[in-house]
Amino acid sequence: MRQCIEACLACHRICMETLTYCLGMGGKYAEARHLRLLMDCAEICQTSANFMLRGSELHSRTCFACSEVCGRCAESCAQMGEDVVMNACADMCTQCSDLCWKMGGGVMSQTPNPEAAQRAADLPA
Amino acid sequence: MRQCIEACLACHRICMETLTYCLGMGGKYAEARHLRLLMDCAEICQTSANFMLRGSELHSRTCFACSEVCGRCAESCAQMGEDVVMNACADMCTQCSDLCWKMGGGVMSQTPNPEAAQRAADLPA
Amino acid sequence: MRQCIEACLACHRICMETLTYCLGMGGKYAEARHLRLLMDCAEICQTSANFMLRGSELHSRTCFACSEVCGRCAESCAQMGEDVVMNACADMCTQCSDLCWKMGGGVMSQTPNPEAAQRAADLPA
Amino acid sequence: MRQCIEACLACHRICMETLTYCLGMGGKYAEARHLRLLMDCAEICQTSANFMLRGSELHSRTCFACSEVCGRCAESCAQMGEDVVMNACADMCTQCSDLCWKMGGGVMSQTPNPEAAQRAADLPA
Repeated sequence: MRQCIEACLACHRICMETLTYCLGMGGKYAEARHLRLLMDCAEICQTSANFMLRGSELHSRTCFACSEVCGRCAESCAQMGEDVVMNACADMCTQCSDLCWKMGGGVMSQTPNPEAAQRAADLPA
Repeated sequence: MRQCIEACLACHRICMETLTYCLGMGGKYAEARHLRLLMDCAEICQTSANFMLRGSELHSRTCFACSEVCGRCAESCAQMGEDVVMNACADMCTQCSDLCWKMGGGVMSQTPNPEAAQRAADLPA
Repeated sequence: MRQCIEACLACHRICMETLTYCLGMGGKYAEARHLRLLMDCAEICQTSANFMLRGSELHSRTCFACSEVCGRCAESCAQMGEDVVMNACADMCTQCSDLCWKMGGGVMSQTPNPEAAQRAADLPA
Repeated sequence: MRQCIEACLACHRICMETLTYCLGMGGKYAEARHLRLLMDCAEICQTSANFMLRGSELHSRTCFACSEVCGRCAESCAQMGEDVVMNACADMCTQCSDLCWKMGGGVMSQTPNPEAAQRAADLPA
């Protein structure tokens, strides 16, 4: 778990720095979808790290979400082409995605919260 | 989605207020597991609301995590017995859990991020 | 204080929504300085609200910071010219700035943390 | 500034870990005021780091607030007596308080936001 915490904290940081870099570069770097993914990734990494640091019994859920968001952010960074900053961010996101997947992946094989599923099915559309 | 944003923001707020109430009450109200769930719930509701407010394509992931955490927090609050504050918090958490489930539930029927799954399987134990 | 909490929560929300709007509009709306101020304002409003909701003895400090950031964000929004979304955001930021100022303004008339001031003065440049 | 970012990130982390430790220990460690200060300190360190990572023009305001909160949290940790975990947290908080003071201290010598001061003075009591 310690390794996953480190990865989330490092990924939060690099996404914040990359966001600042992209805002400064403009153009394709500052396209809405890309900036949004960097903000998403920074925020969920922070939340995911906090759940683990707090010793939360539910950290697998935030790790699972984090894994998905990091994966998508890595793709978006990698598509920017040859750029040292973007490549470093893509690498860190990929690493964090993998470690979070390991922490949170088991979530998928459970049937979660069947009561909420039932109540949600009963809500008006 | 607007309804789900409202629920997350309201649930974040009531969990923060309930946390303050529980810290003041002490005893069973201030047991580690209960306080931790209130902190977890407040934080993931905030993150989940932010993803939706940002128009994130990945809000279903944070909604899914939020649904699970809210459900667990509702249980913990309900177990406190007859207490107006705890019951109100349990009700809000349940409502938020249901709405988030509806937003995020579809996550479970996908096979997410197969590449991360593969890479994670290859990591040393 | 309740009024100030409401203002911070409402201001956090409208800044997040305005950020999404500006990302979608592009051009002058998506200039780095403006986006950054919206992110700053959303985050400090959230933190400031959380300090008050937690009953923190130090909420005047976060309110003071929040007041300044909201004031600057209001200016930036107002400079966008005739735009209903930007004007609504400017108005909310101004209102939040005023209420936070009232909560936190007293900070300025104290001599804060004289020991940290001394230790900081002793740090190498 | 890099040094101050590092300090805020490290202080956020140690406060989260110490919070978990204190919840586990119970007794005087888990008194409301102490837990609240740890939560306050973790949150403002996170916010302060994010402002600097984002290159915000207003980071001096969040650094100023952070300096005050860290200072108060350091005192609370130091009062716990001989305890390795609490002492390490107190040291980190003191260090972060000093560095943030240096970044944000100039705030105090300005007359901030005079318009908000006027409008706040005009608000009903």
